[in-house]
Formats: sequence, structure tokens, C-alpha cells
Amino acid sequence: MRNVTYAKCVRCGKIYEATPDLTNCECGGILDIVYDYDYIKSVLTKEKLSQRASRSMWRYRELLPVEETTEDTPLRVGWTPLYEEPQLAKMLGIRKLWVKDDGQNPTASLKDRASAMAVAKAREAGAKTIACSSTGNAASSLAGNAAAAGMQTYIFVPERAPKGKVAQLMIFGAHVISVKGNYEETFKMSAAAIEKYGWYNRNAAINPYLSEGKKTVSLEIAEQLGWEMPDYLAISVGDGCTIAGVWKGLKDLYAIGFIHKLPRLISGQSTGCCPLNRAIQTGEDWYPMEENTLADSIAVGVPRNADKALMAIRESNGLAINVTDEEILAAQRLLGRTCGVFGEPAGVTGMAALKKACEMGLIEQEATVVSVVTGNGLKDVANAIRSAGEPLHIEPDLDLMVEEFGKRGVRVE
Amino acid sequence: MRNVTYAKCVRCGKIYEATPDLTNCECGGILDIVYDYDYIKSVLTKEKLSQRASRSMWRYRELLPVEETTEDTPLRVGWTPLYEEPQLAKMLGIRKLWVKDDGQNPTASLKDRASAMAVAKAREAGAKTIACSSTGNAASSLAGNAAAAGMQTYIFVPERAPKGKVAQLMIFGAHVISVKGNYEETFKMSAAAIEKYGWYNRNAAINPYLSEGKKTVSLEIAEQLGWEMPDYLAISVGDGCTIAGVWKGLKDLYAIGFIHKLPRLISGQSTGCCPLNRAIQTGEDWYPMEENTLADSIAVGVPRNADKALMAIRESNGLAINVTDEEILAAQRLLGRTCGVFGEPAGVTGMAALKKACEMGLIEQEATVVSVVTGNGLKDVANAIRSAGEPLHIEPDLDLMVEEFGKRGVRVE
Repeated sequence: MRNVTYAKCVRCGKIYEATPDLTNCECGGILDIVYDYDYIKSVLTKEKLSQRASRSMWRYRELLPVEETTEDTPLRVGWTPLYEEPQLAKMLGIRKLWVKDDGQNPTASLKDRASAMAVAKAREAGAKTIACSSTGNAASSLAGNAAAAGMQTYIFVPERAPKGKVAQLMIFGAHVISVKGNYEETFKMSAAAIEKYGWYNRNAAINPYLSEGKKTVSLEIAEQLGWEMPDYLAISVGDGCTIAGVWKGLKDLYAIGFIHKLPRLISGQSTGCCPLNRAIQTGEDWYPMEENTLADSIAVGVPRNADKALMAIRESNGLAINVTDEEILAAQRLLGRTCGVFGEPAGVTGMAALKKACEMGLIEQEATVVSVVTGNGLKDVANAIRSAGEPLHIEPDLDLMVEEFGKRGVRVE
Repeated sequence: MRNVTYAKCVRCGKIYEATPDLTNCECGGILDIVYDYDYIKSVLTKEKLSQRASRSMWRYRELLPVEETTEDTPLRVGWTPLYEEPQLAKMLGIRKLWVKDDGQNPTASLKDRASAMAVAKAREAGAKTIACSSTGNAASSLAGNAAAAGMQTYIFVPERAPKGKVAQLMIFGAHVISVKGNYEETFKMSAAAIEKYGWYNRNAAINPYLSEGKKTVSLEIAEQLGWEMPDYLAISVGDGCTIAGVWKGLKDLYAIGFIHKLPRLISGQSTGCCPLNRAIQTGEDWYPMEENTLADSIAVGVPRNADKALMAIRESNGLAINVTDEEILAAQRLLGRTCGVFGEPAGVTGMAALKKACEMGLIEQEATVVSVVTGNGLKDVANAIRSAGEPLHIEPDLDLMVEEFGKRGVRVE
């Protein structure tokens, strides 16, 4: 990889050669992939990019840690739509708003970006099998992307994992091991199996390449905006890998001179589980927290990528905004009815945080903002039902319909 | 619309001016939009198309029945991925296979193409409100596309409609009327309301513009294949609007000289509900049939677009293949584990039919085929659970894992 210099521990600074099977530093810290930006500037220009036919995350190969000979992965990951939303901007009292709908990825979440990278790096490592322990979007995106690439997956889930999510993994042909035990036991069993069989490890806070996949969401936003960056970028935060990836992509573009301004990050967490935002708000270290939120994908009491996430929020002079479950569901409805975008609760927490920040007067009226929706609402229909409210339930009678809508403040016309 | 000549009844031949609010012919027949292909040839070339930046169904405006001044609709509908699947082609014993994943549309089904067209035509008609009666993909796609365009929707559903589907409509801000009655009563109430309030009518077998939206799936397939058409195109069939749209798109391209061969259509229906395929197989007229299949989106015993659908299958010298629910679920698993594509049962019925046709020896070994997946599996998790099978459920013990996988014929390595 001519564009990559090495990998460096964000905690102790130790340097590693960028082999495909990197995991954590021996100090326990997370590694960061370091690039040769001078080289990248010499081979990549905006003009060159604009003429490229590829509409997937692999459009940005010069900024990605893969060998030139590594093939694009099969599923079409990335180049999700960025919608300008003037009506919602007006409602929020800001100048401009764009919504990046990353639920429009193949398995319906931003995690596809990380899993496609895992498949690419596993191929470079000569691995035929990838493993992880998760029940969520990481697992389904891994199962889907690996299946398309003809690779096997072993996915370890705690026995409490919802049947629907397990079914999705099984449809993709993953070998699913439902472990009689809690998440900690499940994780340990997966680690032991990965160690014993030499499977490729897809765990976002262990494998430093995965956030390099996630950063492509920022590269796309920048290109879709014609390299004019917004003042703020709002996103949901769980274990910290996604916001760290988002920031990495922005810094890459700044380093090669494609953008001249870095947006301030808005980190959206749930009031019921916000260890990272609490650290930002108090200025202290983070420490574990209970997981009391219905936004399951970001219910992470022990964020595994705290180092990179906190660094990203602080470097960007970001805002840490906590929102209640009710505020999350309200944001889900707001996005649905105003933008036609259906996000899962964890996927719209960034939008809920933006809305709250606007209401708190933290965002200037002249501000421009991008809000990333990280997962599709079809992934969690139970909470959509909770959020949506009841339809009108009536006899087939038009007058009755008009009357009942009237009671709800809707004038039928 | 310089490119449109008029609308013509497929049953009696009566001609209508192509106003935006067309419904059925006075004889009850369905209208077809007729184009001025000479004009289209004079304004559209393959080269011109290839330089177009737009990656949505509106890329093909010269072939679509909209005014030049009508804006593209807001959600990114269309330009879904077409995946070449060499491994699955080999398993089926054919030369080449591509899978078009139309579940990658904004509300996760091909119906978004029709609903986006409905929104565009409603705008032309000066309507601010669109209505339909449906609980399925037509309703959710209408609700989403209309919300993004700032239009109101009234959607009439029978009271038995699944809560999850109703929730999706409510999230998109649709006015949902759950009617105490069966589907027939629901439909009648919607018709009365549409008549009374002058709402724009989104019913695919009544509004002739909708299949013009659906046909964009064929336009994309052709362009994505470099205008080299496959020998067969397999698709699921319910009320007949989709296969009719697919055929219309192919004939359009043939008429303007962009393609020089028309594929044979493979019409996939369920053995439990196959009135159209039965008509093809017997050579007789179609007549109603019970609706005994888990593939709910194609469980249509009284297909409302039988005329156009039967004409399409016959003109293409097509194959009518019925498959059991078990064969549909098997096709769902096959697509998931081989291609990483998760389709809903009704969405993969075309693939099930293709597989069966191959097994019956109806498809030549040298054949090339495109199979369209019309909806995302996340829309129907209950059937995915039924299809997927059970994971391994064990104590956290690696030896036990190896032993149990061994019993399933899986060698852990």
C-alpha cells in the first residue's frame, strides 16, 4: 500500500507495519492508520475523482488502506443519497440542512462500510473465514458482504439475541452460534475461536481498518456537497467507532487540501446511556454506564473506541448532546414525515441531538448542518410501532372520517 | 409532453389525450401510454445518456411521460445495483446470471418507481394530496415519496392490516384510515373519498402512468449491461403491473434501437395463487383464484392488470412457472447465502421460478438471465424466521461447537 505509512497506537504511539491482520496495540490501545498525504496528493485530484464511474465506497481507493490489486467487494456499499431538506431546516431554524441516508446500504446500515473493508482486508490476509460477536448491524453487514464475496462467517450471539436478527444472519448463510451465556461469555468464546482457527477478526474497536471503511461516509458527503463543508455534522454515537471514522475522513480531506474547513461534530447519545458525552461534558475520563435506551445499536455502556471518539469530538470543538428515548422517537417521526426517510432509533439519534441543540440555542441561525442517518427503520419495527401512534380506526363512512380527523386537528380537503 | 402521443385503451383501442389525471377507459380497460419514438430517437442517444450524472429513474426522462418542467422527485429512486453472479449461474447450470436488487430503493421495493411517478404526475395535475388503498409496498412507497415531496397522503387499509406496515405509513406521516371491513369495503371507501375530494389516485391498475415508472427497471438493466440483453428476464408476478412495466421498458428500448433483442419473460407465481400463469399454461382466459401463499405482495387472486400482463408474457414467448412456498423460501436462502441479497418472499419468487425452470430443463445451458428481486426481506421478518432455520444453541465450549457443527455437516476450519 503505497498510500499507507504505518499504523500507530493512539494511546502509546507505538508504530506497527500495516499488515492486513492488525489488531490492538500491545498496550491495549487502538491503532490508527497513518497515510502519506503527499503521495495521495500526487495521485488524486478532484477532477480525476469527478470522472470516475464507480458509485460505491471504493471510489476513494487512494484514501483507503487496501492494496491496488485488491478487488472491490461485490455488494454496492456507499454512495448513499444526501438529501437537501429546506423544509426541515426552516423548522429547526437553521440556514441549510442535508440528511445523509446511510440506511440505503445493502444490509441497511452504515456498518456495511466497515464490513466491506473487513472483507477486502480478509482477502489480503488470505483468510477464507471472518468472525465476530454481535447481534446487531455489524453482524448482519458482515454476513451479507462476506456471503456475496464467497467467504464464510462465524457469528457469535448471546442467547437473548432477537430472533429476527438471527434469522437475517442465517439467511445470509452465516454459521451462527447462539451462546448460552451473557455477552461477555459470548465475546470470550468468539475470541478463543478466532485465536484457535485463525479466522479474520471483524470487531470495529479491535481491527483498525474498519473505521477506515466508515470514513467513506465523510468522503461522500464532501464530494456530494461540492467540497463545501457544513458548519456542523450530527451523528449518533455508541461505541465510538463511527464518529471516529467520520472525523478521520474529514481530516484526510483537509490534509490533502480537498476541503478547507472542518465541521464541528454533534455527538448524539441517549440520556440513558451516554458515557462518552458525559466525559465531554464533565471534562473527565469516561467510565462505564448502564444501558437504558431503546436505541439498541448505540446502547453501549462500555464504549470500546472511547479514545478515538473523544479525541474526535474534542478536536472538532464538538457538541455533546443527550436525548431521551421520547426525543429519539420524535426525531424518527420528524424525519419520516418531513423527509421521507425512515431511520431506526439509533440511526436518528444524531438528528434528535441536532434538534435539541437548535432548541437550546446552541446552533446559529446561519448554520449549515449535515445529519447522518446510520440505519434503516425496517430493522426495528417494534419501536416504529411504539413511535408511530394509532391510525384512524373507523366504519367505512366518509362523514365519520372527516369528523374523526377533525378531532385530531386534520382538515380533510 | 412532446415525447408522448396519447393514451390508448389496451382492450377497445379508444384514444385519450394524455392528461395527468388519466384513469381507466370508459370500457373498463386499462390505458397504455403511447410514445413518439421518432421524436425520442431524435433527442436521445446512448452517448448522451452515458454522460448524464443523474443516477436515478429520472435519468431516462425522454422515455418517461412527464413534462420537461416537472422536477425530479426528491427521494433517490432507481439505479439499483445489478450484480453479476457467476457462482449462482454455475449452480443453476446457465452461462450467465445477474441479480437486480430492487429492494435497494428508498422504501425498499420496486414500487418506489411507480410511487415517484405518481408524485410527479400529481404535481402536474396540481394536486396536493394522493390517495390509495393498500397495506403493502405500494402504500409505504407512496407515503415515503409523497412525504419527501411535501404532499399529503390518505391511505385506506383494511383493519386486518399488519401493525408493522401501518406503523411505517404513520412514520411517513400518512393519514391512515383503518377501515372496519374487508378489502372490498376499504377499496370502495377510498374510491368514494378520491371522487369527493379530487385527490390524485395512486392505484397501479387504474393510473396508466405508474407502470411507466416501473419500466425504468428495464431501462436500467439494459444500460447496466451495456445494451446487450439477456436471453431471459425472471420476475415475480402478482396483479400484473410490474411485469407489464418491465415489458414496456424493453419494447421502448427496442423501438428506439437501443437494444436489438427482447428477452423472454419468466413469470414467477405461487402455486397457491397463479391465475395469470394458469391462463398462459391453459391458453384460456384468466379467472379468479384463492390466495394461498405466504408471499403476500403477490397473493392476488383477481389480478387487476391481467390484460397487459398476459400480453407481455405472450408477446415475449415467455415461460409461466409456478413455485410452492417452500421453493420460494429456498430461493430466499439461496440468494442470501450465495449473493448476499436478502429479498422478501414475493421479491424472490422470480428467482424461485428461474431455478425451477432450470431444473425442469426449460433453460438452455448457454442461456443468460437477469433475475429481478422486487422487495427487501426486512419487510417480512416473520417469514425470514420461518425460512432461516435455527442457529447452533450451545454452552460456551469450542469442542462442543465443532462437534455440533459436524452433525450439521459443517467442518469448522
